[in-house]
Amino acid sequence: MKETDILIVGAGPVGLFTVFEAGLLGLNCTLIDNLDKPGGQCAELYPEKPIYDIPGVPFQTAQEHVDALLKQIEPFDYDLNLSQRVQTISEDGDFWIVETNEGNKFKTKNIFIAAGAGSFEPRRPANLENPDLFLNKGVTYAVRNMDQYKDKEVFIFGGGDSALDWTVELSKIASHVSLVHRRDQFRGAYKTEQEMRDLVKNEKVSLFTPHLINEIVGDKKVTGVKLKNFETLEISEHKADELLFLFGLNKKLGPILDWEIDLEDKKISVNTTTFETSKKGIFAVGDINHYEGKLDLILCGFHETTLAVQEAFKRINPGERVPFGYTTSNKKLQKKLGVID
Amino acid sequence: MKETDILIVGAGPVGLFTVFEAGLLGLNCTLIDNLDKPGGQCAELYPEKPIYDIPGVPFQTAQEHVDALLKQIEPFDYDLNLSQRVQTISEDGDFWIVETNEGNKFKTKNIFIAAGAGSFEPRRPANLENPDLFLNKGVTYAVRNMDQYKDKEVFIFGGGDSALDWTVELSKIASHVSLVHRRDQFRGAYKTEQEMRDLVKNEKVSLFTPHLINEIVGDKKVTGVKLKNFETLEISEHKADELLFLFGLNKKLGPILDWEIDLEDKKISVNTTTFETSKKGIFAVGDINHYEGKLDLILCGFHETTLAVQEAFKRINPGERVPFGYTTSNKKLQKKLGVID
Repeated sequence: MKETDILIVGAGPVGLFTVFEAGLLGLNCTLIDNLDKPGGQCAELYPEKPIYDIPGVPFQTAQEHVDALLKQIEPFDYDLNLSQRVQTISEDGDFWIVETNEGNKFKTKNIFIAAGAGSFEPRRPANLENPDLFLNKGVTYAVRNMDQYKDKEVFIFGGGDSALDWTVELSKIASHVSLVHRRDQFRGAYKTEQEMRDLVKNEKVSLFTPHLINEIVGDKKVTGVKLKNFETLEISEHKADELLFLFGLNKKLGPILDWEIDLEDKKISVNTTTFETSKKGIFAVGDINHYEGKLDLILCGFHETTLAVQEAFKRINPGERVPFGYTTSNKKLQKKLGVID
Repeated sequence: MKETDILIVGAGPVGLFTVFEAGLLGLNCTLIDNLDKPGGQCAELYPEKPIYDIPGVPFQTAQEHVDALLKQIEPFDYDLNLSQRVQTISEDGDFWIVETNEGNKFKTKNIFIAAGAGSFEPRRPANLENPDLFLNKGVTYAVRNMDQYKDKEVFIFGGGDSALDWTVELSKIASHVSLVHRRDQFRGAYKTEQEMRDLVKNEKVSLFTPHLINEIVGDKKVTGVKLKNFETLEISEHKADELLFLFGLNKKLGPILDWEIDLEDKKISVNTTTFETSKKGIFAVGDINHYEGKLDLILCGFHETTLAVQEAFKRINPGERVPFGYTTSNKKLQKKLGVID
């Protein structure tokens, strides 16, 4: 079990900048994020889009903003735990024990929830009762490893770019690919749609429109799938090894809801002095928190976490004055930043 | 009398960013600053120093930061009133009437005090009762126009770079320059001190150390000066036309102290929802304000003024919902920013 000064849930801009402010005070951090890269929705949803309202940065793409923050925290002591979600917390005296869904355990005095609008979760097919029953036993929500689909009967569900891209891509290695969508129009790139339709013409791919899934067939793992025709309401059954649902991502608070922290408007309530939640040592910063006057802007999260880090320092060093200085003039800070020896 | 949506006292980083956030909401601004350029102490005191703690900007000199903010507010409607100080305010219904020491008058619903540590005021000679009696009548605290000293008997007071620089410079045009300092050591650049001492050797400059001013002689304007020798306590009288006091700058709240706004620790008390002071429509943002947990960091000022601008909008458009959007995705905001037509 790793001990860390601040455990940060979410590696978006506010989580990353937390490492900077903590580092100035000599604190180390552990970042946990459900995505497979740092940057939160800036990196995942709109990396190429320009942001105009970062103070002092007239123009920067979202990914450039993330890259700048990563550069800014380079001098400091932190580690990044990706592709996993914080699952449970429990109290241990002054400490919190945090466990992820990958079984990693951390001990910390300070949890910073910087999870933006929540963790990104793939949308499930709405009409199935428990699609996760077959999770990784024939049901997947993202392609992690292409080999999994090699020489398999694959059914892909969805109408966007991901569904089209993977239909084209997996048709090269699967024994057969079927694409299922509730209507015969697609939201993806025109060019990829044409590729897909050419594959259908050449019988490399089967296209089921307007169809949706009706039932997963299988015992311990998926062996087939029942599809319903949206117009005729006819049900058809097919042999299937892999069902790949590509309906996009949902943002969800997820397991944080089970931590019994006070909420308001589905956001986590905090005070505006330390941005601590109703639980001692648990802070919420950035878009995920709520207080009177709250605005969901990155610049507000930067302020919030900077103040919260002060309180984290006090919890780790009770009775000690929090050191304060300006990076323009303070030699100690400049040493920490590695800009002077 | 000019009417403006937000009158901003102080054109430092937080004052400048206020123009941006106000502009996004369609509000115009008027900036007033005592200095002769925008940027506050970033531009005046340490333009060449690097700042490391602006979020998302790993490295930037203070002047580069100011330049970036000026570029960021280019698309918006604001005017800059420099080299003048806000002097008096008075109420006029829902409005405030603001007057500067240059006699300029403004009418506004919202005053934002973004004056940092206060306005920069030249330090006065401590032992004279009212040196400002002769202000611009033979007493100056900065060289605004060199011609003023041409062919004059000039006495320069001070021991830093400014005093040394101007002694050397004005000795070229004045009829004679005397430098007065309380001790025979100088805090300025060694090279300039040597130049000054060479001028003294060549009788182009008189050096009075350890001396200080004892009295200004004159009726309607300065005609002479009495100096006191610090060691012998002897008083000497000299003919003089211009007395130039270069004792550095003090940061002072100045006339704002007369506005009867609640203070705490010499800072202006605000709430953390709208950053409004004890007076309706008067806000304080950045280093000049105080609330529990306050940190004097530029990034905190950015947050504060962004929230305060929301309230300013409501005061101007009562009952209207404050528009909100992200610059990454909101076409209306992008139009305002001038990045799309």
